[in-house]
Order: sequence, then C-alpha cells, then structure tokens
Amino acid sequence: MERDIYLDNSATTRPYDEVIDYINYINASVYGNPSSLHTKGIEAERLIKKARDIIAGSLGVEGREVYFTSGGTESNNLAIIGYLSANPRKGRHVITSKIEHPSVLETCRHLAENGYRVDYLDVDSKGIINLEQLRDAINEDTALISIMVVNNEIGSVQPVEEIVKIKNAVNRNTVLHMDAIQAYGKIKLNPKKLGIDLLSISSHKIHGPKGVGAVWANKTIRLKPILFGGGQESLIRSGTENVSGIGGFGMASEMIFQRLEENFKKVAGLKSLFLKRLEEEIDDFHVNSPEDASPYILNISFPDLKAEVLLHHLEEKGIYVSTGSACSSRKDTRSHVLQAINVDKCYAEGAIRFSFSSLNTEQDVLDTIDALKVIIPKIKIHKNRRR
Amino acid sequence: MERDIYLDNSATTRPYDEVIDYINYINASVYGNPSSLHTKGIEAERLIKKARDIIAGSLGVEGREVYFTSGGTESNNLAIIGYLSANPRKGRHVITSKIEHPSVLETCRHLAENGYRVDYLDVDSKGIINLEQLRDAINEDTALISIMVVNNEIGSVQPVEEIVKIKNAVNRNTVLHMDAIQAYGKIKLNPKKLGIDLLSISSHKIHGPKGVGAVWANKTIRLKPILFGGGQESLIRSGTENVSGIGGFGMASEMIFQRLEENFKKVAGLKSLFLKRLEEEIDDFHVNSPEDASPYILNISFPDLKAEVLLHHLEEKGIYVSTGSACSSRKDTRSHVLQAINVDKCYAEGAIRFSFSSLNTEQDVLDTIDALKVIIPKIKIHKNRRR
Repeated sequence: MERDIYLDNSATTRPYDEVIDYINYINASVYGNPSSLHTKGIEAERLIKKARDIIAGSLGVEGREVYFTSGGTESNNLAIIGYLSANPRKGRHVITSKIEHPSVLETCRHLAENGYRVDYLDVDSKGIINLEQLRDAINEDTALISIMVVNNEIGSVQPVEEIVKIKNAVNRNTVLHMDAIQAYGKIKLNPKKLGIDLLSISSHKIHGPKGVGAVWANKTIRLKPILFGGGQESLIRSGTENVSGIGGFGMASEMIFQRLEENFKKVAGLKSLFLKRLEEEIDDFHVNSPEDASPYILNISFPDLKAEVLLHHLEEKGIYVSTGSACSSRKDTRSHVLQAINVDKCYAEGAIRFSFSSLNTEQDVLDTIDALKVIIPKIKIHKNRRR
Repeated sequence: MERDIYLDNSATTRPYDEVIDYINYINASVYGNPSSLHTKGIEAERLIKKARDIIAGSLGVEGREVYFTSGGTESNNLAIIGYLSANPRKGRHVITSKIEHPSVLETCRHLAENGYRVDYLDVDSKGIINLEQLRDAINEDTALISIMVVNNEIGSVQPVEEIVKIKNAVNRNTVLHMDAIQAYGKIKLNPKKLGIDLLSISSHKIHGPKGVGAVWANKTIRLKPILFGGGQESLIRSGTENVSGIGGFGMASEMIFQRLEENFKKVAGLKSLFLKRLEEEIDDFHVNSPEDASPYILNISFPDLKAEVLLHHLEEKGIYVSTGSACSSRKDTRSHVLQAINVDKCYAEGAIRFSFSSLNTEQDVLDTIDALKVIIPKIKIHKNRRR
C-alpha cells in the first residue's frame, strides 16, 4: 500500500484542493489589512463578509451574529467566558458534561478558580448526558450550560431539543452554548430554530485551514471580548483578521454544505462496511461508539493490546488513526470520555478512533480491515492472560 | 500607472512568494494535527519546531521560550495578562505609554477595570517616553511595564537600554514587556541581552501570513494561559496549531533576517529620497516622524486637506497609504499618537503614514511624489483660509 489512508479526520482534515488554491490566491492578491481605508483593505473586508455570509447561511443565522476566531478552542473560550463576563448578574453557576473537549473543561476549571460553581453531568454508556441530572442541576443561579453536539472521541450526538426544552422549563434565562466543532458540516444544525444561544465551530475539521473558527451568538446575547485591541469583529474579537484563513473557511463551508447529505450517506456507508468487515474478520473487538453516533466517528477497542502499538503498525502501512482525541493523545492518561461511558480499563487501553471524511473510499475501509487482520494477532499481549 | 505601489506596509505586508508557496505545500502535504501520535502529526510538529527555532534564532533566544499565538494582538494580551495572572503577588501597578497600540491600551483598560492601577507615560514631540516620569512612576507595586519598541504610526524608536536601566535601578522585580511588532525583522533585537523579559512579534508585518504571531518570554518568567484547552505550546497557548501559518511565519522570518541590514539600508534610502523629493516638489508639509525614527515609517502632514481625501486620490493612482494606523483608521477619531506628540489639529487631520518595505523601489517613491504634486493642489481646502 503506497497511498495514504487518512482515518483521523476528527483530529484534522486535509484542506480541499479548491480551498488551498483560494488561500494561495488570497495570500498573493488580497493581502490588504481589512481595517485599511483603501481598496486593498476594502477588498479584504469584502472577502471576509462573503465568508461570514456563507457561514451564517449554513446555520440559518445572520452574518452579524458570526464572529471569527483563531479556532475551535478560542471559540469555546470566547462563547463561555465572553458571555459570563458580559453578564455577571445572570448567575455564578455553570453546567457542562464530563465528556466535553478540553477547551470547555479547562475553561470551566478556570471559571471554578474564579468564583463560579461548575457541575459536570454524567453520561450513560452511550455517551448521552443524564437529562434528569440536567433538570435537577439547573437553578436560578445557572448562567450557562455548555454541551457539545457531537462528541469528538466516540461520536455520541446529544439530544439538543430535549436539552433546550428542559433548560427553558426550569430557567429561561439560562443560556445554552453548544460546541458544534465535530457536528458542523456533518449534520444539519439551525441553532436559532433549535433554541441554542451560542455555538462554536472550527474550520480545520471541515477541510478548511487551521487557525480559524467562529462563534455564532444569537443577536440577543451580549458578549464581552476575551482579547483586547483594535476592536475588529464588531468589537468582539480584536486582532488583524486572518483573511486567507477566513476565506478558506468560508469556501470549505460552502463546499461541505453543498454535499452535506451526500457526504453523510457516503460516510454512513463506509462506517457500516467497516463494522461488517470487522465482524467478519476480527475475533474480538468492542464498539465504544453508540449505534446512533455520528457516522464520522467510530471508536473501537481491541482487547489485550495497546492502542498506540496498533496505531504505529497501522501508520507503517500508511493508515492514520487516533487513540483518544488528538488534543489529548499526547498525554499518557486514560481518555476521560471512555472513562465517563464506563469502558473497562482493559478495553480502554486498546481504543482506536477511526474518523472518516467524504474523501475516504470503500477501498480505504477494506485495506484498513486487511491491515488490522494481519497486525492484531501479531501484537496481542498473551502474557499472563487468563480466560 | 497600472502597477500597485503599496506603501502601507506597517498595516500589513504582502507575503513573500516563497512563503505563499510554502503555505500551499503545508496545506496540501503537512496537514496532520501536531498533537496526533502518527507520522502526519509528527511531521507537523517538526515543522512547527523548525519555525520556532528560526524565530528563536532571530532573537538570540531559546526555542522553548517562544510561544506561537494567533497574531500580535493575542501576543500583547498573553504577555501582559498572562504574566500578571501568573504572578498576582508581584504587584497591581502597570506602566505603559500614551502611544501604545490599541492591543496594549485596551488590555490596560481591561486591567484598570479589574483592580490594577495603570500609568500612561507622556512622550515628547519625537514620540519618546519621558524617562524621568518613568523613573518616578515605578514603585514597589509595579508588576509590569509595557512599551513598544517602534511606534506603528510615527516610527519613533524607544531607548530600550535606558528603560531597562531605569527599571532595574528602581525595582528589579518589575518585568518589562516590549511590543516589537513594528521592530521585528527591521531592526536587530536581542531581548535577553537587552534585559527585556517579554516580547511580542507578528508574522504579517514581515511578509508572513496573517493570523500568527508569537510571544517570547524569558524562561525565568512564568506565564498563565489566557485561552484554555488542550495544552498546546507547553500549556501556555491551547488550540490546534495554525501549522501553515506558523511555517509561513518561520520562513518569512528566515528570509527577512537574512537581509536585515541590506533591507534597512534600502528602506533608509527610499525614505531619504522621499523626503528630498518632497522638499523639492511640495510647498507645505510637516514631518510627524522624528528624524531618527525607523525608516520603515514616515508620517507626514499636509495642511489644509483631509488625509482621507488624499488617500482616496492616491489609491486611484494605485498608491496605497494609511491615515493613522490601520487598526484604528476606521474610527473617525484623531490619532492618539499624533495627539500625544502634540501635532496641531490642522496638521493632524492631514496626516498620512507612508510605510515602506524592502519590496518597494525608488520608482515607487518617485511616482508617489509625482502623484502628490498633482493631487495636493486639487484638494486643498481654500475656504475661510487666512494667511
């Protein structure tokens, strides 16, 4: 196998060729500072407006409700901290879940160090938050709830409508932020219609460039900046705009939304094929992702082996996968998500995330299973094994 | 005149062709997430390390002291807020100047709203901070001084060594942050040798891409992050790294430092030529930049006209300049820098910043003077003029 089989699309994606070309064009030709008064500035500003409108359109929201950031992490930080600091009287209590991305969990830890009380909701074995616990947790002091739409490690999809319903029943003033970084461009989302207040999205998960993301905030929501300066992005996000990054993000968004359903069908097919072939060829494995998860993410444990060893054997064959999520995979700790869904330690150690994109093919899947068939028996730990 | 004459290089620069090509290559081929364990991640991580080492080398510092950010604004925010929040016992007093960039001034305003006392130093007519005032302002409670090396509007260069000497004489524990965004890649700076503690730099001012910058922090300095998440950049700056941006920044840095002196000489020559031809051809003008300013920035007032009108007439001829700095040029207020150096209102209204790069040519200068010669008499305001 000479070609690359990239199955780590939840960590990051290869930018579309069209996006790469567009970035090239922007860097060479639309290099003005959007704040400049002359045409070179205005050109750059128009380009940003176009991208903003594309992204707003993809969510069914208004352009002026979209704020560009440097990526998903900043988006989550801005949405959460920016809301709370702009609305100090709305309460000092925050609710999130145990399976959020570090950019939410660490932000919440920062809040807890600064006078906020944070509750972390449990999830069931399918990675779905405990809705009863949510209902009980919300009180008059609850300023904000932050829940991710699609989990980055196992792909579980939260019941957004029920979350909104519960929130509104208990405290209408509580604001709902959703981290949609693994959902955007993969499932349809109309945050306004759903009753979400704040949404975070990222470019490099949808074949756009790294270094750019966005926050959508319902226009009724007041935010304060977390970076201070020239007042770009309607005073909410200072700093010279990453024009080529924003342009590339816009184009990636346009391209991926044009084929949203087609892509979804294709990827769902790849996932089914993967599971079918796995069933046929591999003796012992455990699917950590729930059945109704996003098809883009398939987390599977192979018992009695170390995921990292499997990962390196796969990469020798040009197949790229992940153990846990990329953002925390360098840390030698057990995944907090697999822990939250109660995956046995012996299974968690052999957990691999296969994450697809519409650029993957059936051949990718078939070749990956063939590779697993050869590698797994070779690397199984047989010492002290009792059965 | 068909070709563009871009004289707004302090607002932003056109990326070098080599940088554009490199970004292209990275987006297509080194698209892994640096946090991924497989070779695609390691490749991306190596590329970042290479850029980090180039930038460290250009400053005579260690790679591990360099933290990549999303740009100059974030760098200034991280250096100032990150230092103060990591060192709450070092004091609640901050000193800056009246001619800082908004990303420092607004950060200081945020600090003032959060229990810090901020002193803003005056500058003389040459834009140099009042050193006596600095000495008097420093006290036991002074945690940090933030001063820009080269001013972005008029190009004045602060006496770094004297600032360090005064600081160390009065309070050795006070930390010195310098915004070097207009200095980096244009004048030689060895922050460690100079006794600076924290330095901010930006990519898009040196023919690198927008959306990337860096903070250098002496390894003795403790910083806390201002964005929370996966712990990238040695736990100081979370968020998936902007790999192509960082790579492009590294290449731009390498290229510009290879020709630092050559570029300086060339630009100094362009500035001299500009002033000489201005003297010969234009009746009435006032140089707002001090004589010993950075040659890259030349701020000139033309009395009895509106800078914005002149700007638009110039752009019709393909000549791009700025009124005030780009970051605040969209706001219809008098420049805080020109105010601080006491430029008369009638002059301040007609202030144009010509900012050069080594990509400019003598012909650019000659053509610009020719254009000014034609435009200025046409747009002078003669109404109610008394002389």
